[in-house]
Amino acid sequence: MERQKVKQLLSEMTIEEKVGQLTQFAGLFYSTQTNDVPVTGPVDFPVNDEIIETSGSVLGIAGAKKLIDIQKTYLEKSRLNIPLLFMADVINGFETIFPIPLGLGATWEPSLIEELQAVSAKEATSAGLHVSFAPMADLVRDPRWGRVMESTGEDPYLNGLFAEATVRGLQGEDLTQNSEHLAACVKHFAAYGAAEGGRDYNTVDVSERELREMHMPAYKAALEAGVKLVMTAFNTVHSVPATGNQALLRGMLREEYGFEGLVISDFGAVQELIPHGVAEDETEASKKALLAGVDIDMMSLCYSHSLTQLIKEKKLDESLLNEAVERVLHLKNDLGLFEDPYRGTSEKREKSTLGHASHKELARTVAEKSSVLLKNNDILPLTKETTIALVGPYADNNDLLGEWSIFGNMDETATLKDKLQEAFPTLTFAKGSDLYERNQDLLEEAIHSATHADVVVLALGEGRDRSGEGRSRSSITLSPSQIELAKKISELGKPVVVTLFNARPIDLTELEPYVDAILECWHPGSEGASAIVNLLIGDANPSGKLTMSFPRATGQIPVYYNAYNTGRPLPAGSEERFFSRYIDIPNEPLYPFGYGLSYASFEYSEARSNGDKFDRKQTLQVEIDVTNTCNVEGEEIVQLYIQDPVAEVTRPVKELKGFKKITLAPNETKTVSFEISEPMLRYHHSDLSYSSDPGTFYVFINGSSNCTDTNKLTITLTEA
Amino acid sequence: MERQKVKQLLSEMTIEEKVGQLTQFAGLFYSTQTNDVPVTGPVDFPVNDEIIETSGSVLGIAGAKKLIDIQKTYLEKSRLNIPLLFMADVINGFETIFPIPLGLGATWEPSLIEELQAVSAKEATSAGLHVSFAPMADLVRDPRWGRVMESTGEDPYLNGLFAEATVRGLQGEDLTQNSEHLAACVKHFAAYGAAEGGRDYNTVDVSERELREMHMPAYKAALEAGVKLVMTAFNTVHSVPATGNQALLRGMLREEYGFEGLVISDFGAVQELIPHGVAEDETEASKKALLAGVDIDMMSLCYSHSLTQLIKEKKLDESLLNEAVERVLHLKNDLGLFEDPYRGTSEKREKSTLGHASHKELARTVAEKSSVLLKNNDILPLTKETTIALVGPYADNNDLLGEWSIFGNMDETATLKDKLQEAFPTLTFAKGSDLYERNQDLLEEAIHSATHADVVVLALGEGRDRSGEGRSRSSITLSPSQIELAKKISELGKPVVVTLFNARPIDLTELEPYVDAILECWHPGSEGASAIVNLLIGDANPSGKLTMSFPRATGQIPVYYNAYNTGRPLPAGSEERFFSRYIDIPNEPLYPFGYGLSYASFEYSEARSNGDKFDRKQTLQVEIDVTNTCNVEGEEIVQLYIQDPVAEVTRPVKELKGFKKITLAPNETKTVSFEISEPMLRYHHSDLSYSSDPGTFYVFINGSSNCTDTNKLTITLTEA
Repeated sequence: MERQKVKQLLSEMTIEEKVGQLTQFAGLFYSTQTNDVPVTGPVDFPVNDEIIETSGSVLGIAGAKKLIDIQKTYLEKSRLNIPLLFMADVINGFETIFPIPLGLGATWEPSLIEELQAVSAKEATSAGLHVSFAPMADLVRDPRWGRVMESTGEDPYLNGLFAEATVRGLQGEDLTQNSEHLAACVKHFAAYGAAEGGRDYNTVDVSERELREMHMPAYKAALEAGVKLVMTAFNTVHSVPATGNQALLRGMLREEYGFEGLVISDFGAVQELIPHGVAEDETEASKKALLAGVDIDMMSLCYSHSLTQLIKEKKLDESLLNEAVERVLHLKNDLGLFEDPYRGTSEKREKSTLGHASHKELARTVAEKSSVLLKNNDILPLTKETTIALVGPYADNNDLLGEWSIFGNMDETATLKDKLQEAFPTLTFAKGSDLYERNQDLLEEAIHSATHADVVVLALGEGRDRSGEGRSRSSITLSPSQIELAKKISELGKPVVVTLFNARPIDLTELEPYVDAILECWHPGSEGASAIVNLLIGDANPSGKLTMSFPRATGQIPVYYNAYNTGRPLPAGSEERFFSRYIDIPNEPLYPFGYGLSYASFEYSEARSNGDKFDRKQTLQVEIDVTNTCNVEGEEIVQLYIQDPVAEVTRPVKELKGFKKITLAPNETKTVSFEISEPMLRYHHSDLSYSSDPGTFYVFINGSSNCTDTNKLTITLTEA
Repeated sequence: MERQKVKQLLSEMTIEEKVGQLTQFAGLFYSTQTNDVPVTGPVDFPVNDEIIETSGSVLGIAGAKKLIDIQKTYLEKSRLNIPLLFMADVINGFETIFPIPLGLGATWEPSLIEELQAVSAKEATSAGLHVSFAPMADLVRDPRWGRVMESTGEDPYLNGLFAEATVRGLQGEDLTQNSEHLAACVKHFAAYGAAEGGRDYNTVDVSERELREMHMPAYKAALEAGVKLVMTAFNTVHSVPATGNQALLRGMLREEYGFEGLVISDFGAVQELIPHGVAEDETEASKKALLAGVDIDMMSLCYSHSLTQLIKEKKLDESLLNEAVERVLHLKNDLGLFEDPYRGTSEKREKSTLGHASHKELARTVAEKSSVLLKNNDILPLTKETTIALVGPYADNNDLLGEWSIFGNMDETATLKDKLQEAFPTLTFAKGSDLYERNQDLLEEAIHSATHADVVVLALGEGRDRSGEGRSRSSITLSPSQIELAKKISELGKPVVVTLFNARPIDLTELEPYVDAILECWHPGSEGASAIVNLLIGDANPSGKLTMSFPRATGQIPVYYNAYNTGRPLPAGSEERFFSRYIDIPNEPLYPFGYGLSYASFEYSEARSNGDKFDRKQTLQVEIDVTNTCNVEGEEIVQLYIQDPVAEVTRPVKELKGFKKITLAPNETKTVSFEISEPMLRYHHSDLSYSSDPGTFYVFINGSSNCTDTNKLTITLTEA
């Protein structure tokens, strides 16, 4: 309907009906067929029929028939015919599951992410969904946190590009016209990734400048891409829970950033203002949340129980309620739900869409591009004639979809064994376990199966039951069983290739010396096994690069590439005392941000530029020649870093400011160039102003963040 | 001289002479006899005679003869007869070494700390010193940081009491009249203890409110006690290095807190503005530091090289220089140095003062009171007839003085073996090692020596070479050798008592199940061995309580008692998923803040109060009965905690607001009472205002911070 009719509709609504629009409950309250849907917080509270009949949106269920039925039943009882919104977490795919976001980040290919999110949207809308709770744009630096899997990593700029791509892919050009797209929801506003100690939901303390400089850029990128919804974070920001934080939501998000879409709480977060200690009861929690600017109360009874009374008793201005409801109605209208509450969903469309061959093909490609080759002593790729033994707990394991694959189908997911056997029919295999210490026989079998092989493929990692929300770990090592297996296998003296299936940076310090190759596969999705086999046999060439550093030890956390120099930076290789260091390990992570190997190998020339001075209106061209010195084609991600060595505040040792992914034929050389302009040099000053200062800057172009001073260009931004 | 004469003196000084007053160099530049003095940063820079001859103060040397000679030589060349100031780190004693500050904290006895700091001052002044760089008032929550040893722990209030006591003990009533006291210097302003990842000198990021609420109170307590100097921190505060931070030093410290004393940089910190990235060169570093309010440049050539020129070229106002120099001259005058540049120092006084028997007696008492009994399966105290075997790397080790004992005498320090043999002449003993893995024979000997004993005393820990400044560790476990020793010894089936000599909270999770008693002895000082033996045999009864939590694992860091509840606090004993927790360990530390056992045992009654409502002008009396249920006398530290369950910002789950240390005879009961008044309920609001809000509060009285909801009082602050 026309946009202005929303106001008319609003004026016809009772206060109770308006409040209903601001509530969201899980699908289990709508249908008896939905008990299998996971929920991520407490659900043991009384939601009565009346609440459900006036509610505005539904959480976490999908399926064309189911949602059509629910919508139909709901509308039959709806006085004003306002349809329900169906929202769910479609994070890395709907039925066709792509690699987890941390893996998607490793592709360094926002356009690919846009493409796969469009596929996700197509599948999700065919199953009746209207909103997906993606992208998660939280900056992550602590791999203890289980939800690092859902982020694209430790760089604000790169996270911003991926957040933007996700919004574009999910939302498309026009939600009203195109029912194969759905509304995106950027989360978790703000700084959820900075949970203290990496313990999920824990308090966050971050200075105002750091919040703006490091955490905000990715959320802002999603806003600028036109994201329709913002989800609040569970944590505090400046000691006030985000969900009750006026300065954050009304001040920063709405007034300063101009966001006009819907703000939704995370699961139960309005009610959580009580345990957080800023609200005495549901009534105060509701008041604080609405005042802060939370439009929809997801999965708590606060709004349902108390908003009506707060308005009637004039403790809250009805205009606040109206604003929020208007935003809900606008989203429903933008989605075309007033014209077609089913948005063209049908079982037929759903059937022909879900898991389409082209989607699976894309999932395989993405899984190939997201894998990161961490180590390779010339053992990979495997040659066809090799006799392979495949062992380890992830050898014949379909736990490859990642924690957020709630609509994926694990049972139909091929395991590494399934696919590796196709490539190597003589494959020997031993049943894996992650508890060899309780099952020494299995360990013996694994070793025995490897005795006659040329190469052992060791499938290690950690499953979805140890990653994701509510799954923080105080130790990020592999299980002792897996380390024991690797050590025992290495005693055979055969080349050992590790394929790692995990959802966070793992401490590989103990494993690394015992193995010849490590391929980080993440939780690679529906077509992960095919992709990994393609990589192992060289039908695909690894090109992924890490977007989150792999620490040497849990005790090295946080370690990230865009850190500050400190006043006592440790000189390279030094073990002297009075520098910023640990006495028991080096300062560098085991594998840094931007790192990843290829079967090809790339040589970088010295960088050059078309000048060394420029002003605010000019740009500088910097370029470098990259040569593939091998006889296989390969993709390389060429990275541009800039350092501001003297500024009004301490600046990072380097910051990613650009990158290009290139394909190089055997022995081919390409020139890669970047344009440097003044906006790339801006930062938040002490007074929070965002601008650049004239002066000297260093430019590094490299295939990883571990670039050194020996290959840097010095450029100067002049006053003029 | 009279205070107003300082201005007169200042007016006679040349710019060069003034700049000289603002410089401080290490003693090694003044005397060839001082090469043995440790320095804590780079010293390989050219300090010429001219710089030394106009310098204002000297760092890190002591000794009556030496300092008299240096002062004399210096004054002979001084045009205006302005004497040198001698400053050094007298942290936990001068020659008589007391336990490290983390151990001093465990006494919970500020008056005792005042007493021992007065003794330190007496010894240090006899050796010619004028300023000590104590107290360190940094709040510490990360035991990876080597300097936690130098703090009194994780509580702002308790740290404040200790900082205040240290200032009073060192400075006495009147520095001019009493040359047995010296000037104190509170450090490191500000928030040095919050170094990211516990890596020394690393960046600090903390919100403004958290800075004021948690970090500032202890510094402020020292300021309110009249501390003469403040040392700047190495780290950034709000992204600007403290040493160049105008908002911090001129804004907060001088204008807001009204500090009129001297501000001195930490070692080389002015020059470090360059690597920090906020100054291009020495000149800019000097300018930023002086503008920020740093009076003395410790151990960098920045002020020497560039201040004169900056003033002469009018790039800095001479009034800034004058202010700083005036503060230096006032301190010299306050110390009476214009009347007697030697402050009555003589070799005779020094000899009769250092290591006086009464000092040693106090050192022993303090070491007894600072030890914390962490575990005791009824094996301690040892009875006289017991046959004891003493093993482990700290069994016969005089590394008991801690890292800051630069004027202490390790060679003359008795080891545990020396003293335990006196109590148990039949003691068997095996030479210890911290590298049994390289010396399996020593391990065998240790086990052998224990074979015929009734009880094994295992002396474990980490030495000064693994603690203190520049000694951060990525892992806080004991060495693998020590764990192996403990496990092997435990196989003998005999009771095992561990005495721990270490300087940070250690991860004891692996050790704990194998041993029957653990006595945390810290680095206990000159008389540590005697004190520990007294405790082991029951001549003294352990009474110390931890002031810093002992984590279960490095990956649990940070863990501290005054944390926030979060919106999803884990219910006690729950292992459910969607709560704030790690999936591999409990949320609680192994040993919490406030915890410590006694050979006595104490029973607490229910708490009671003389009312449950009070207003801003009233107080409430809360009290509890504590009973010693044993037949030995013991000391108990009764702790008062308050929680503010609903506030404008999220508040800690509890905060220490008072404590009383009581002695209870066998079977005695005492009533302990606390007065609660409105100022105890104040906190920093979002707008940084510091005030209380009317409402409900919970009061807990207990012998440790792990008090539960079952024994709490509810009180209400009313509006009136």
